[in-house]
Amino acid sequence: MEDTICAIATAPGGAIGIVRISGPETFTIARQVCSRMTDATPPRTSTFTPILDDSGQVLDEAVVTLFCAPHSYTGEDCAEISCHGSRYILNKVLETLIHKGARLANPGEFTQRAFLNGKMDLSQAEAVADLIAARNKATHDIALSQLRGHFSSELKDLRNQLLHLTSLLELELDFSDHEDLEFADRTELLTLAQTIEEHIARLTKSFKTGQALKQGIPVAIVGKTNVGKSTLLNQLVDDDRAIVSDIHGTTRDTIEETMDINGVSFRFIDTAGLRETSDKVEQIGIERSIQAIKQARILIWLLDERPSLSELDEMRFLGKDKISIYVHNKLDLIDVSQFKPYIFPLSLISAKNGDGISNLKHLIYKEAQRAGLTANTSDVIVTNARHYDALIRADNDLQHVLEGMGAMKIDERWTIVNPSLSGDLLAEDLRLVLSDISDITGEGQITPQETLNNIFSHFCVGK
Amino acid sequence: MEDTICAIATAPGGAIGIVRISGPETFTIARQVCSRMTDATPPRTSTFTPILDDSGQVLDEAVVTLFCAPHSYTGEDCAEISCHGSRYILNKVLETLIHKGARLANPGEFTQRAFLNGKMDLSQAEAVADLIAARNKATHDIALSQLRGHFSSELKDLRNQLLHLTSLLELELDFSDHEDLEFADRTELLTLAQTIEEHIARLTKSFKTGQALKQGIPVAIVGKTNVGKSTLLNQLVDDDRAIVSDIHGTTRDTIEETMDINGVSFRFIDTAGLRETSDKVEQIGIERSIQAIKQARILIWLLDERPSLSELDEMRFLGKDKISIYVHNKLDLIDVSQFKPYIFPLSLISAKNGDGISNLKHLIYKEAQRAGLTANTSDVIVTNARHYDALIRADNDLQHVLEGMGAMKIDERWTIVNPSLSGDLLAEDLRLVLSDISDITGEGQITPQETLNNIFSHFCVGK
Repeated sequence: MEDTICAIATAPGGAIGIVRISGPETFTIARQVCSRMTDATPPRTSTFTPILDDSGQVLDEAVVTLFCAPHSYTGEDCAEISCHGSRYILNKVLETLIHKGARLANPGEFTQRAFLNGKMDLSQAEAVADLIAARNKATHDIALSQLRGHFSSELKDLRNQLLHLTSLLELELDFSDHEDLEFADRTELLTLAQTIEEHIARLTKSFKTGQALKQGIPVAIVGKTNVGKSTLLNQLVDDDRAIVSDIHGTTRDTIEETMDINGVSFRFIDTAGLRETSDKVEQIGIERSIQAIKQARILIWLLDERPSLSELDEMRFLGKDKISIYVHNKLDLIDVSQFKPYIFPLSLISAKNGDGISNLKHLIYKEAQRAGLTANTSDVIVTNARHYDALIRADNDLQHVLEGMGAMKIDERWTIVNPSLSGDLLAEDLRLVLSDISDITGEGQITPQETLNNIFSHFCVGK
Repeated sequence: MEDTICAIATAPGGAIGIVRISGPETFTIARQVCSRMTDATPPRTSTFTPILDDSGQVLDEAVVTLFCAPHSYTGEDCAEISCHGSRYILNKVLETLIHKGARLANPGEFTQRAFLNGKMDLSQAEAVADLIAARNKATHDIALSQLRGHFSSELKDLRNQLLHLTSLLELELDFSDHEDLEFADRTELLTLAQTIEEHIARLTKSFKTGQALKQGIPVAIVGKTNVGKSTLLNQLVDDDRAIVSDIHGTTRDTIEETMDINGVSFRFIDTAGLRETSDKVEQIGIERSIQAIKQARILIWLLDERPSLSELDEMRFLGKDKISIYVHNKLDLIDVSQFKPYIFPLSLISAKNGDGISNLKHLIYKEAQRAGLTANTSDVIVTNARHYDALIRADNDLQHVLEGMGAMKIDERWTIVNPSLSGDLLAEDLRLVLSDISDITGEGQITPQETLNNIFSHFCVGK
């Protein structure tokens, strides 16, 4: 971090474009390029100044702000040049800065420096990229909560609990000749370890929700052929996405389309109609439908008549562990006053003319919310695969500790069934759990350069 | 201008995005949205603050800067919110500002307010849009020079000269009974008027250069069929733009492609080969080639043997008033030591393997520069059609004044041949010239709202 980096931090094409500089030579370079900037220019103050190119010719008139270390984004001396947003000007400014001694920043290098200077931990740094990429309220809220340190403080709690557990073990080691004391402590240790394990398990579980929110909660539209599944998909996503015809078995590939409802992203999957068929391609399509149904969190069962007993059986089988929503289509073809619902609750729609669609969307959202898939903004949700991996490792290592204590999981509860390993062996395993948790925030240990580079290479340049 | 406007000022998709606010309610609104901003927050100072949405939930953490009227871009109270560049955040911030009482700005409305508040004149405001759109050094330099007021100060000179002329006329009116005095003044008046007219004519002439620089200096590649014109075009623009084959008459449409040489944009035009043909489509193509040649400023005559006398005649005819560059192609097929140039100066190239192309580019630039087409950065160049119209009107009105003085243009010089109209009639006409010039800067008179709206509607929103 001994060199000074620069990059364009805005997308090309706007009215305003920003060039960022960070590093020890920032002020020296800025003063050469910004003709109205002097040693006396105070930090955090906007200065309107001509920007000079290498030959001293005026490139633009811009507003420049200096930020003194450590009170800056990166924690180093920083400058932001806010000039007219033409690609020509931005590139020329960059060229001049490089000529004066700055270096073009790598993707995410500003945030990487912020991390290395202790301005944020690793999980917060990763949240920056997620925040910029967020396209709807749900993913935005999770990323922002992570950036503001809610996940980090939850991890801090975990670390403290683990440290407490370790210190209890060490206390036990000091008094290892008192047999009575050991037994009493073991129960307390077990309770504590179990609490921690539940905590970690809750976080790993949230990853599934986090993934669903990031990629859209998968909703499969399921039903017999020709019941109107593709028409419903088109209505839900408000687009002519799937080919619609009167011919049975029109849809063969599973078709996906994402749509936001109340700021939450849903991934609607149109499937091939379930029926016995001798058509090879259709058979493959049906096989894929069944895969899609297995991966879905919500199933929309589209019906146009009372299902047969064998169909009801299939619905029960495929709908296990999922949210099922029953929908009667072709409302336009029936006399509503005479209609008797054959399944409860049953929504009535006409996929053809759109009747009942907005109610159905609302119902889908409500059901997802009731199942906790939409996430509360106050919940900490794990969205990052790297964090998930670390938590899974922590969970495994902690189970190792619990087993070392002689405990066994019976009916979701750990109970001591065997004699325990010695305290120093347990402490060894506990250190592994601590290290797994520290991996997420990058605290308390040196994260390998390779991991860092990998994390920050997914950023855009200028961040 | 009693309402407060807001807009996103950066293009979507960068690391940083900026939302701008301007108008009397700016600070009241900013304080509601930026939780760390108070009455005591000083202007021109960066404040790091959470941004709250309508429900008081944190939307982002951003750097906000206030600018107090008149020390701002618009001359009004302004604020800039520099937040994470996600489209979701930027739209949400905008939504919140609108909910708090701001209004979405029209395209160019910030700059329009800057003009109305006297922060810049109209020609400078127009230069802002040109500057953002500039893609190469030449157009950038002209726009920046115009923004920095070089054109405005030239127009100010013109106005002063016109005012001096008017005052001389008024002086004459006061002493209208002294016949001797009148005659002496008329000569001085004529000299002065003639100087002004030359000045205006120089500016109108620069428009052609300005247009060429904006759209690219037109360079037609001309020659017989199958001499390698399309291959040369592809080499010059470094792309497979035109279809190339051994068949005579492959190119029928005129094909254009723009390429910068030393920061100046050249528009290369590949033409159909000139030959007698019975093919109807090819005949139309040849007709179009001749049109393209007429509009070009530079002609590249591509040859592969000594032209016949009739061809030389045609070259002389088509090349009248243009820069002609003679190029012998197919260098790869000849023995250079035996080659005798048949026309002077003659450049040797191989369009096929690229030999001589960079020399040819340099030659094209040099010739354009020699003919004054590349413009000196210190010259004032008119690039805006509205300014050109006003200058043409001013020139016509001034010729009216000169004719009113009894002058006639003989051999480029105005000479008095008739008795003059009375001073008050001349002064009337002079006021028209002054008004034409004032139209450009919008000074000294109220520019109609329609004209203003038309000018600023070409801006991007947020500027």
